[in-house]
Amino acid sequence: MFLLNKKKKTSGDKHIDQLANIVGPNEILYKKEDLLSYDCDGFVIEKALPKAVVFPKNTEEVASLVKYCSANQLPFLARGAGTGLSGGAIPLNEEVIISLVKMKKLISVDYENRQAVVQPGFVNLKLTNSISDKGYYYAPDPSSQYVCTIGGNVAENAGGAHCLKYGVTTNHILGLEVVLPNGEIIEISENGVPDSPGYDLLGLLTGSEGTLGIVTKITVRILKNPQGKQTVLAYFDDIEDGSHAVSDIVSAGIVPAALEMMDKVAIEGVEAGSFPVGHPKDIEALLLIEVDGISAGIEEQIDEILKVCHKRNVREVKVAQSEEERGAWWANRKTGFGAMGAISPDYLVQDGVIPRSTLPKVLSNISEISQEYGLRIANIFHAGDGNLHPLILFDARVPGETEKALKAGTACLKACADVGGSITGEHGVGIEKKEEMRFIFSDEELDAQTQIREVFNPENLLNQGKLFPTPSRCMDVKKIVKDTVAH
Amino acid sequence: MFLLNKKKKTSGDKHIDQLANIVGPNEILYKKEDLLSYDCDGFVIEKALPKAVVFPKNTEEVASLVKYCSANQLPFLARGAGTGLSGGAIPLNEEVIISLVKMKKLISVDYENRQAVVQPGFVNLKLTNSISDKGYYYAPDPSSQYVCTIGGNVAENAGGAHCLKYGVTTNHILGLEVVLPNGEIIEISENGVPDSPGYDLLGLLTGSEGTLGIVTKITVRILKNPQGKQTVLAYFDDIEDGSHAVSDIVSAGIVPAALEMMDKVAIEGVEAGSFPVGHPKDIEALLLIEVDGISAGIEEQIDEILKVCHKRNVREVKVAQSEEERGAWWANRKTGFGAMGAISPDYLVQDGVIPRSTLPKVLSNISEISQEYGLRIANIFHAGDGNLHPLILFDARVPGETEKALKAGTACLKACADVGGSITGEHGVGIEKKEEMRFIFSDEELDAQTQIREVFNPENLLNQGKLFPTPSRCMDVKKIVKDTVAH
Repeated sequence: MFLLNKKKKTSGDKHIDQLANIVGPNEILYKKEDLLSYDCDGFVIEKALPKAVVFPKNTEEVASLVKYCSANQLPFLARGAGTGLSGGAIPLNEEVIISLVKMKKLISVDYENRQAVVQPGFVNLKLTNSISDKGYYYAPDPSSQYVCTIGGNVAENAGGAHCLKYGVTTNHILGLEVVLPNGEIIEISENGVPDSPGYDLLGLLTGSEGTLGIVTKITVRILKNPQGKQTVLAYFDDIEDGSHAVSDIVSAGIVPAALEMMDKVAIEGVEAGSFPVGHPKDIEALLLIEVDGISAGIEEQIDEILKVCHKRNVREVKVAQSEEERGAWWANRKTGFGAMGAISPDYLVQDGVIPRSTLPKVLSNISEISQEYGLRIANIFHAGDGNLHPLILFDARVPGETEKALKAGTACLKACADVGGSITGEHGVGIEKKEEMRFIFSDEELDAQTQIREVFNPENLLNQGKLFPTPSRCMDVKKIVKDTVAH
Repeated sequence: MFLLNKKKKTSGDKHIDQLANIVGPNEILYKKEDLLSYDCDGFVIEKALPKAVVFPKNTEEVASLVKYCSANQLPFLARGAGTGLSGGAIPLNEEVIISLVKMKKLISVDYENRQAVVQPGFVNLKLTNSISDKGYYYAPDPSSQYVCTIGGNVAENAGGAHCLKYGVTTNHILGLEVVLPNGEIIEISENGVPDSPGYDLLGLLTGSEGTLGIVTKITVRILKNPQGKQTVLAYFDDIEDGSHAVSDIVSAGIVPAALEMMDKVAIEGVEAGSFPVGHPKDIEALLLIEVDGISAGIEEQIDEILKVCHKRNVREVKVAQSEEERGAWWANRKTGFGAMGAISPDYLVQDGVIPRSTLPKVLSNISEISQEYGLRIANIFHAGDGNLHPLILFDARVPGETEKALKAGTACLKACADVGGSITGEHGVGIEKKEEMRFIFSDEELDAQTQIREVFNPENLLNQGKLFPTPSRCMDVKKIVKDTVAH
C-alpha cells in the first residue's frame, strides 16, 4: 500500500497520459470540474471523485484500459448511464471510471431467432423503439428505461413493472462478451443459445454489480408484441383490501403483465408530479393492472380482475379506454420516484422483496417504522411479485435527518428479511445495502460469494468495496484460498 | 496419492464401518453384487463400481458423510434415480455414492405464494400428482419424470417437452439447501424469494452436475393449471416443410407450451414401442404441438397453427378430440427414447442446441453423418427451442460399432457447435461430453469454470472427472490460485 501511494503521487499524470493514449486525448476527463458529474450515481448519499473518466469506443480499448489499470494497481469500475440506485458506480477508491456510453450501437437484430446484439451503452428503450415497427419489443422495463443502458441493466439485473409475467433482465440475456479484470476477453454463450453447458456464468455475471468483469457486448432475447393489452386502474379505501386483491388475482390463475400498487403518500406524490392523472387523494391504495396476450383471452381475464376488485370492496375500478389513457396511467406510475421531489426535498428509495402473502403485515410494519422515525414513507411497488419500494421522505438540510432516513430504510429491509424476504429485488446492493447482506446471509454464505469474486477479480481492483459487508472478510478468504493451495 | 492408496488398502473396511455408523447398518451397500446396479446411470457406455452406496435420511447425515469422506480423502458423489443421460453419477474413481432416494419427502406446499419444498429424492411427477387436486402443477417435465428425482433435475438443469413456454428447471428453482464438499450446510434463497442479492448462487448450483455441492432441500415454483389446453398432430412429407412450420409458428407470435418433432426413423421406433398410436410410416416428419392458457385464446392460436401447417404443405393435421387421445400422443412421444430399443439393440442419445433458424441445415448435416458412419440416426426433439436429440442406433455386439456411434455423436455435436449452437440442452456434460466442451469454450473460459469448481470443491473429491475436459487444467488452476495469494 505504501508503494502504491508513493507511485500515485509521483506519477499521477503519467497514468492519465497513458490512459489517454489508449482512448485518445478527447476521450478522457481528469480535471476536477469535469469529474464532479461522476461523483455519484442514482444513490446520492455517498459521493467521491474518480481519478479519471475514460470513454472507450470498442472492446479492445476496454481490454487495454483494464490491462493498464491492472498492471499499475489502479482501481477501476464500469459505468453506464449512472441511474443505478444503490451506488454501484460510485468511485469510493478514486477509481478510473470506464464509461461505456460511447459503446452504444445496436449491432444486429435476428428476428427469426428472436435476438438482438447490443453494445453495453445502448439505451434500454431504444431497443424497443428500434424493433417495434417489426412488431417486437425488449421486455425488461425499469422506470429509467428512457435513459438507462442495457449494460447497466445487466450489472444490476434490472427489473421493471412488466417483470411479473416476463421476468427480470437475467431471463432475457442470451449471451455476453466480458472483459475480465485481468484484461482477458471471454464470450459466454455468444450465439444466444440458452442453457449453456458447464456452470451458469451468464447468470453469475448478470446481477454481479460490476464486480466480476466489464460487459462489452450483450445478446438479448426480443419478444413479439402481444396481440392485445388492457389496463385496469382500481382505487381502494383500505390498503388491506388492495393487498388481498393482489393475492386473489394471482390465485385466480391470472399472470398479469404488470400488477403495481401505490399507497396514499405515493399517490399524493405522483399527483403533484409532472404527470398527474386525477387519482382521488383520499384513497388508501391503487392498483394498476395490465393484462396482455392473445386478444381473445384478455376480456375474460379483465372480467375476473374486476370481479376480484369488487369482492375486495374497491371504491372505483376502470379499464383504460384508449392507448392515450393507458399511456398517461403508466407515465404517472413510471415517474413515481422522481415525483416524490414535488412533496419532499429529498427521498431515499428502498427495494425489498417479500412473499406475496406477507404484504399486509409488511406494509403495516413500514407504517410503524414511519411513525417511529417521524418520516413519511410512500409505497410504490411491484405488488405482483412482492417487490416493495418504500420511498422515505426526508430533508437533508435538517441535521441528522439523512441518518434517520438511512436507519428507517434499514428497518424496512429488516422487516422484509424477517418475513423470509430479501433486501433487494432489482436495485442491487452496491454500497447502500452491503451491511444489510448480513440480514440474509450467514458468514459461510458470504464466504462462498466473496470467493467467487476472488476467482474473477483476484486483486479486487474492479469496483472494490461494493456488494459485500465491510470490514470485508478478505483476510479469511485469502486464508481459505491458501488452505486450498496447501492441500 | 501414494499415501491415499496405502490408506485405502489397510483401512477399507474401517471406512465402510464408519460410514455405516453414520447412516445405520441397513443403509449402506458395499458387497460387489449389491454395487453392480450402481456402476452406471442412463449413460451406459462407461461403467465402474463404487466403493459403497449410502442412503442418508436427512441433511445432517449427508453433512456427516461428506465430512467423513472429506477428512479421509474418499472421493464421493450424489445420485438420484440414476436416469441421467450423460454419466454424471458414474463412480469413475471408486466413489462413495451418496444416494438421496430415501430423502423423498414433500416437506410443504404454500399455495398462496406458489411454492413447494421437497427433499432431493422426491420424484418429479409425484409433485404434480400431489398438488393437482388443488389445480396446480410443477412445470419441468423430462421424459423420465415418472421416476427421476427433483434433486437430479436440479443437478442437470433438466428440461422437458413443456420447457419451450415455461423454461427449464433453473427457471423453477426458488431456493436450495446445499451441503458443501467440506460438510458445511448453506441455504440459498431459502424462503423462495426470487432474485437474491449478491451473486446468483442458485443459478450457479442448478445445472452444476453435482460438482459443487449436494442439494438436500429444494424450494420450487408451482404453477396454476392452465384453464385450457389443445394439442395438434401434423404429418409432413418433407422434413424441411416441418422445420419451416416450426419457425412460422413461433414467428406468428405463438408460444406453444410444447412444439415437438420426430423424423421418419424416430416414428418407426415409437410405433414399434409400447405406445403406438398409428402414425403413418411413410411420412418424413411429424410435429406435436400443444397450446395452453386462457381458454378463450386457445381456439385462435390453434387456427393460426393449422393455417401455418397447410401453408407448409402438411399431409394431414388433426386436433386431439379427447384427453385420452392427447394422453396417447404424449405417451407415444415421451417413451420415444426407450422405444428405440424396439428397432435397434443399442442407441446413444445426443443432445445439442441450435438457433431455430438453422434447423433444416443441421438436420441435413445429421443425415450426412448417418451415411458417413453407416448408422441410422433417429431425430426426436424439442423443435421449438432448437433442442435436438439425435438417437444414434447401433449394435454394441458388433466390434467397433460402439466407438463408431460415439464418434457419430461427437460429429452431431460438432454440427450444432458449428452453427453457433451448444453441446447440451438438458442432459448435461457428465463424462460423455466433457471433451466436446472444447467445441464451444476457449481455454480461458474453461479456466474460469474450473476455478469456480475450486472455490466450492477445492480438493476435487466431489464427483471428480466430470464436466470439464481431461487432462484437466487443474495444475494451471492451482498456479492461478497461488498467483492470487502471492499478490
